[in-house]
Amino acid sequence: MHGYSTPLRDMRFVLHELLGAERLSGLPGYADATPETIDAVLEEAAKLAENVLAPLNRSGDEEGCVYENGVVRTPRGFKEAYARFREGGWTGVSAAPEHGGQGLPKLVNFVLEEMFSSANFAFAIYPGLSQGAYNAIQLHAEEGLQRIYLPKLADGSWSGTMCLTEPQCGTDLGLIHTRAVPAEDGSYRLTGTKIFISAGEHDLTSNIVHLVLARLPDAPTGTRGISLFVVPKFLPVRRNGGWEAGARNGVRCAGIEHKMGIKASSTCTMQFEDAVGWLVGEPHKGMRAMFTMMNGARLAVGLQGLAAAEAAYQKARAYARERLQGRSLKGAAMPGEPADPIIVHPDVRRNLLTIKAFVEGARALAYWVGYHLDLQARHPDPAERAAADDLAALMTPIVKAFLTDQGFTATNLAMQVFGGHGYIRETGVEQHVRDVRIAQIYEGANGIQALDLVGRKLGQNTGRLLRRFFHPMAAFLEEHGKDPTLAELLAPLARAFGRLQQATVLIAQKGLKDPEEAAAAASDYLQLFGYVALGWMWARMAVVAREKLPRANGEASFYDAKLQTAHFYMQRTLPHATAHFAALAAGKDSLMVLPADAF
Amino acid sequence: MHGYSTPLRDMRFVLHELLGAERLSGLPGYADATPETIDAVLEEAAKLAENVLAPLNRSGDEEGCVYENGVVRTPRGFKEAYARFREGGWTGVSAAPEHGGQGLPKLVNFVLEEMFSSANFAFAIYPGLSQGAYNAIQLHAEEGLQRIYLPKLADGSWSGTMCLTEPQCGTDLGLIHTRAVPAEDGSYRLTGTKIFISAGEHDLTSNIVHLVLARLPDAPTGTRGISLFVVPKFLPVRRNGGWEAGARNGVRCAGIEHKMGIKASSTCTMQFEDAVGWLVGEPHKGMRAMFTMMNGARLAVGLQGLAAAEAAYQKARAYARERLQGRSLKGAAMPGEPADPIIVHPDVRRNLLTIKAFVEGARALAYWVGYHLDLQARHPDPAERAAADDLAALMTPIVKAFLTDQGFTATNLAMQVFGGHGYIRETGVEQHVRDVRIAQIYEGANGIQALDLVGRKLGQNTGRLLRRFFHPMAAFLEEHGKDPTLAELLAPLARAFGRLQQATVLIAQKGLKDPEEAAAAASDYLQLFGYVALGWMWARMAVVAREKLPRANGEASFYDAKLQTAHFYMQRTLPHATAHFAALAAGKDSLMVLPADAF
Repeated sequence: MHGYSTPLRDMRFVLHELLGAERLSGLPGYADATPETIDAVLEEAAKLAENVLAPLNRSGDEEGCVYENGVVRTPRGFKEAYARFREGGWTGVSAAPEHGGQGLPKLVNFVLEEMFSSANFAFAIYPGLSQGAYNAIQLHAEEGLQRIYLPKLADGSWSGTMCLTEPQCGTDLGLIHTRAVPAEDGSYRLTGTKIFISAGEHDLTSNIVHLVLARLPDAPTGTRGISLFVVPKFLPVRRNGGWEAGARNGVRCAGIEHKMGIKASSTCTMQFEDAVGWLVGEPHKGMRAMFTMMNGARLAVGLQGLAAAEAAYQKARAYARERLQGRSLKGAAMPGEPADPIIVHPDVRRNLLTIKAFVEGARALAYWVGYHLDLQARHPDPAERAAADDLAALMTPIVKAFLTDQGFTATNLAMQVFGGHGYIRETGVEQHVRDVRIAQIYEGANGIQALDLVGRKLGQNTGRLLRRFFHPMAAFLEEHGKDPTLAELLAPLARAFGRLQQATVLIAQKGLKDPEEAAAAASDYLQLFGYVALGWMWARMAVVAREKLPRANGEASFYDAKLQTAHFYMQRTLPHATAHFAALAAGKDSLMVLPADAF
Repeated sequence: MHGYSTPLRDMRFVLHELLGAERLSGLPGYADATPETIDAVLEEAAKLAENVLAPLNRSGDEEGCVYENGVVRTPRGFKEAYARFREGGWTGVSAAPEHGGQGLPKLVNFVLEEMFSSANFAFAIYPGLSQGAYNAIQLHAEEGLQRIYLPKLADGSWSGTMCLTEPQCGTDLGLIHTRAVPAEDGSYRLTGTKIFISAGEHDLTSNIVHLVLARLPDAPTGTRGISLFVVPKFLPVRRNGGWEAGARNGVRCAGIEHKMGIKASSTCTMQFEDAVGWLVGEPHKGMRAMFTMMNGARLAVGLQGLAAAEAAYQKARAYARERLQGRSLKGAAMPGEPADPIIVHPDVRRNLLTIKAFVEGARALAYWVGYHLDLQARHPDPAERAAADDLAALMTPIVKAFLTDQGFTATNLAMQVFGGHGYIRETGVEQHVRDVRIAQIYEGANGIQALDLVGRKLGQNTGRLLRRFFHPMAAFLEEHGKDPTLAELLAPLARAFGRLQQATVLIAQKGLKDPEEAAAAASDYLQLFGYVALGWMWARMAVVAREKLPRANGEASFYDAKLQTAHFYMQRTLPHATAHFAALAAGKDSLMVLPADAF
């Protein structure tokens, strides 16, 4: 059994050496976010992740949440861990200082989300949802609501949820039944049933703030008739100059789900019966406000994919170094032992390197997108802000879906390294597989992410979003493409990039005439895009590592490993991009021709 | 919730229309195995699978096995189900009539194993292991042991196990510690600990027959010093002209594992303390005898991969036809309903077709290999027997690893079709994912299968095994390659076949000089081989379907679906073969260069 050890060196490599995150401290409001401050925050967070959260990961899975009579008990230790989490200020790292937050860049929060999810996937869901609620209220609610809720969400004394799904609708929110009727005092009364509500009920906070999609009486049908409401478990009352949880509201947890994984995270059925709520944003414009939450949540889910893979990788790597079995094909590596550690075997190395190349490439990609969220929020130049917004919008479905699909695969590879021992719960690696499996599903199943990419993002402003990725990548290949020492890395990448461009043209042409063609290509296109994007990140990391090597002193092996892993990625992982190109290029016919009853 | 519905029509298509299994009844000893008899057996087995085994699948998972004081209790209903299983004669379908078996072809047993594993994966493990024990004793034990054990295993009153793994060794059986000391009466006394023993202890049978690998006192080190023993839980005593379970032997279950899945199958730690055993086969030749069991078990595990995917597919297909969500991109398909069934969406169809193409292709491949087991056992011409043996030996690691890797992926795709509902235990689909995950691991993890293929099977008799596959496939492509109406199917298949041939040459050349090169290519080579093999099966099925179509009467849609799915496979699945080719062609360098501490 191995705990979690925060990959701080790798995280700093991406932040400081790849992205140049020190530039963030030049943005308005981020003056404090110097590299030194960021590193100090990461180190403190790492201690919490390793010493408080990780030790509760397995017991949390074994015990799960317990439901009784409307009440949900989290597993032993979760309450105390959450109290320490709050006391450390971790619920408000990126919240505004005027609400008691630390006002640190969103990018810092990305790194923390990775750590916390690696250490304890189920635990990290609770504070993660609060952040989404904070963002939605901050951006869309009127000031009176902000004054009540934002400080409570920032200091973690209250937590948040997103109440979208109903029994008859998940993906298709146009089918929502929950109704909101205006009351005389300007508030609303909500009635309906929501399912699959993460953190809908629990014992970690004194209040729970539900953000609920519902229909007003005069609402048009479909998604254009949905409004967003804030519905607290306890109605806020003014006390001692602040706000506290007061009378119980008409919202109740009717049960929790028994799931494949994330058992320590409560997944609740919530019943609203004349529950008091307040409108967030404009009537019938709830989907827009909810997407503020969703976009952040989708990126966070992508981070979960990477986080689970990292945690599983650490276990597999340790096992591969310890487990003695068989001999190196080159002759005994440890002749004094009964056998060699299995890390001598090429196929074990292949599994480990596949995970390593994914995790480190995915981290670079996710943080790069996180960096653009900060540019989008704080850059003084509106054109820079708009460009960063475009890039984040484009990459969100890719980060969400590619990092969770590949993260699931990577976590399974880690389990495979353990052989039979991996299937046993005791080892802990199979829990990562079960936990991360949800990430391909929630916050919009990955097929929906692909449709978002192809159906909404590609065509937006005649391809403007896409150019935010294509142009700098093309410029990078142009700049480094003539360097013969990089040819081995960049030639396959340039070919894959060519495929991506070809695929884009193909989809644009066919999809314009027939939207089914675009939908039929969507998932393979997203995978192709993800492989190319990670390839670009690896090429950029390789360029950085090569520059650093001559002055690396004690860190030569660190930079060497980056270069070697970049080569591995191009040789062993990137070829899969081509398969997705070929699949999508085949078009929709073989998908659509079979009648439903012939399946 | 949907139960299991046996795909009898698809099974018969493979048996009768693709493989021409009626020819089996022409082999010595198989005269009774007419198509009519086979179909009648399948129909009876289907009833058992659907009505007895499938209803216990989820409760078995929820309850699991319970260990107390050396005793293991299987979940409720398992005892009764096993009694009906026995009474129906299903434990001895392929056992010899002289031992009370039905003497039916092994191919028939393949079909039954698929059914039973689809219906209840964990249950089917119990009788599955008994068959392996039966085969090992029948082929390797002396007649006295055969007379005692074979009738008991055939009638299912006793069950079998394979005791290989020890805490310090799984893959590397050369490290086995368990010792066997000769006693004066010609028997042996075994002492040692075995772990991960499936069905090592349970309450389904009156005795359990362990086949145990152990070392004799004078044994050479490594795998050449391992012998095989039969060690019953209760010593057989002669009673009423037969053999019954007598005094308790020195073997005891010390505990069971808590696993990710197959919770209703007991996975036991077995302690042998001066346990009485009898040698099976020659001293120090235990590995050979054990491989008789292992080869059968590996094919059975491949069937499990396909079986789980079939079961999950049935659930996903039903859900996709029922769940209303969103609208067809061509306009409402069911305007009277609030939304269309999700099977209208291209990406849902892509998921379903990917599973369907895998399951039906995998079934064809597995049964085709099963057919060769019968040729190998019964064909009057020794050359035919040898050829069939070659083919089965070649294909065993492919069936084991490819069908379980892809089966796991397929099962996860089925879960994905359910969205959030798939992650909930109630739906039942996530259980298939957890259950089938073991199949990539046990009976030799899939990486080991790849090494078996590349390291042992490829080079054997200067490629003779390989030619058993390459020659008929090349002949098929030659025969049909000029038919323009098949070009769309066969052109991509011929290209992929070319890649497989190229990869084979590459491995033969590089691997001869450097075995690490062969090992580095092994897993990707196996995947490439698997994709090509399934592609060939689909091409053959398409040829059959096309021939049948003009006279299909009411079955036109069945044959049409075969043709369409063949096209889907070539366009959407087969392209992945190319990625594996590119990955393996890159060679070992990027795998081997990183030092162990740089991972």
